Amino acid sequence: MSYRDPEIGQIRQVLAGLVAPADAPRPSVEKQRADYEAFGRSIPLPDGCEVEPISAGGVPAQRMTPRGADRGAAILYLHGGGYVIGSAATHAHMVARLAEAAGTVAINLDYRLAPEHPYPAAVDDAVAAYGWMLEQGWPASRIVIAGDSAGGGLTLATAVALKAKGLPQPAGLYPISPWTDLTQSGAAHTAKLASDPICNPAGLEEMSGLYRAGAAANEPLVSPLFADLSGLAPMLIHVGSEEVLLTDATALAERAALAGVEVRLEAWPEMIHVWPFFHAMLAAGRRAIAEAGAWIGGRVAAGA
Amino acid sequence: MSYRDPEIGQIRQVLAGLVAPADAPRPSVEKQRADYEAFGRSIPLPDGCEVEPISAGGVPAQRMTPRGADRGAAILYLHGGGYVIGSAATHAHMVARLAEAAGTVAINLDYRLAPEHPYPAAVDDAVAAYGWMLEQGWPASRIVIAGDSAGGGLTLATAVALKAKGLPQPAGLYPISPWTDLTQSGAAHTAKLASDPICNPAGLEEMSGLYRAGAAANEPLVSPLFADLSGLAPMLIHVGSEEVLLTDATALAERAALAGVEVRLEAWPEMIHVWPFFHAMLAAGRRAIAEAGAWIGGRVAAGA
Repeated sequence: MSYRDPEIGQIRQVLAGLVAPADAPRPSVEKQRADYEAFGRSIPLPDGCEVEPISAGGVPAQRMTPRGADRGAAILYLHGGGYVIGSAATHAHMVARLAEAAGTVAINLDYRLAPEHPYPAAVDDAVAAYGWMLEQGWPASRIVIAGDSAGGGLTLATAVALKAKGLPQPAGLYPISPWTDLTQSGAAHTAKLASDPICNPAGLEEMSGLYRAGAAANEPLVSPLFADLSGLAPMLIHVGSEEVLLTDATALAERAALAGVEVRLEAWPEMIHVWPFFHAMLAAGRRAIAEAGAWIGGRVAAGA
Repeated sequence: MSYRDPEIGQIRQVLAGLVAPADAPRPSVEKQRADYEAFGRSIPLPDGCEVEPISAGGVPAQRMTPRGADRGAAILYLHGGGYVIGSAATHAHMVARLAEAAGTVAINLDYRLAPEHPYPAAVDDAVAAYGWMLEQGWPASRIVIAGDSAGGGLTLATAVALKAKGLPQPAGLYPISPWTDLTQSGAAHTAKLASDPICNPAGLEEMSGLYRAGAAANEPLVSPLFADLSGLAPMLIHVGSEEVLLTDATALAERAALAGVEVRLEAWPEMIHVWPFFHAMLAAGRRAIAEAGAWIGGRVAAGA
């Protein structure tokens, strides 16, 4: 297969050496974590970005301050990895670029992972970190919650949980390739299986089982697609056309719109799961970060 | 009910005096046409916009040239009205504002209407006008096709028909509150029935019957939701959260994304069917026109 964007073909070649095929035995969680750490940490941060380890309401995090950032506005970032792998460190390169593009600081959260800490640990940690940010003096109107993949689903679950607790919504939500439906009902699970170089239903199902630890897959804070989304903050959703989670994103857009939420959904042709992660090799990743940064910057500027 | 945007409440009051309730007897086609003409023609055009009646490949149209427009780039505009009512004249005020915002000229098409001229007359006319535009020297890369409601569905049907004829896609498609599914299968047909002050399933069904004149409702050029959308130009879809056609738009976004089309969908909370039409009374209508104009301007600039 050839691509209009030659860079995405090169990234597929890289991934073919990193990601186990859908029909191969799954590597252990330990190996998946180690591989992800090695890959993510190898990608450099932008020059001049300060990184400070902090405790965000008891949850370990990186406070990232890009050069020239408005310290009065912040992104709460929730990394991807199926609620099982990944960390603030694997995503630091992308979070720093996003904060730089938005002109804000970022709280890049190391929420607890399954299987050691199953649902609802991740939601509890994200809510605790958000509450801590409010205590630190960032008004809700100057915070945007963002995350990719499982972290994109967690972005939405957190927003739903904040509503239930009577806490104010942030200025915006930016889910990237979000995993919103752990019942795996989306049409893209089959339609895009052959073209997705990263995710497949078997791998998602394994992580879903570890995360849920018996909780129902359609529970609203597990699968925010099934939550009452009314009253949620405006959201920008980015998704690639060539991923099995494409319909998790489009279904989210529909459900949020029906609930009266301000929604902007962008489907990027040829792009794969969380393509902004590959910004170092992919102009389309840099474009997505620049565009999302402008959107986040606009949201927090309106909240100043 | 109260609205965060007070202007939309005022527009609902105006519409309550203009649009028959969903459970009232339907006015005759003649009366619907006359009322629509009177309302649409009462809204002024922007200062300095030239309007010239032309024949676009045999189809009557207005050539609209806003002050300062780039005459080398053009919007082909397809008005709404259920394929039965409306005209270039009812929409001239909105088309002129959109062309002004885009910095282009507009060909505002008076395609043939049902029941006098049922499907596929409208599609044939739009394709003929596009072919004429290419002959006039506008390259496809400097044309965007746009339309609202039935004209939004026709925008997509035209793009599908162009593909079938081997003609080049335009630089972009801008469907506003598009009617993409004449089988009326969308969930918003019931979910938003009570909050939609303009459209209702009975009225849509009447117009669908007059337009189809026996053609199947799921025929791809009647309901482009069911067409093969692969290869279509990038699209910006605008839809209001409070309209029965909301899910026609979200389903379109999903189908187009699955087909690998570049899609940007925006659902605007509290907004109603084709709210940019009410720009004279509604800042959110002016914002939508400004944003769509910027998108169209960017598409045709990239094609220069």
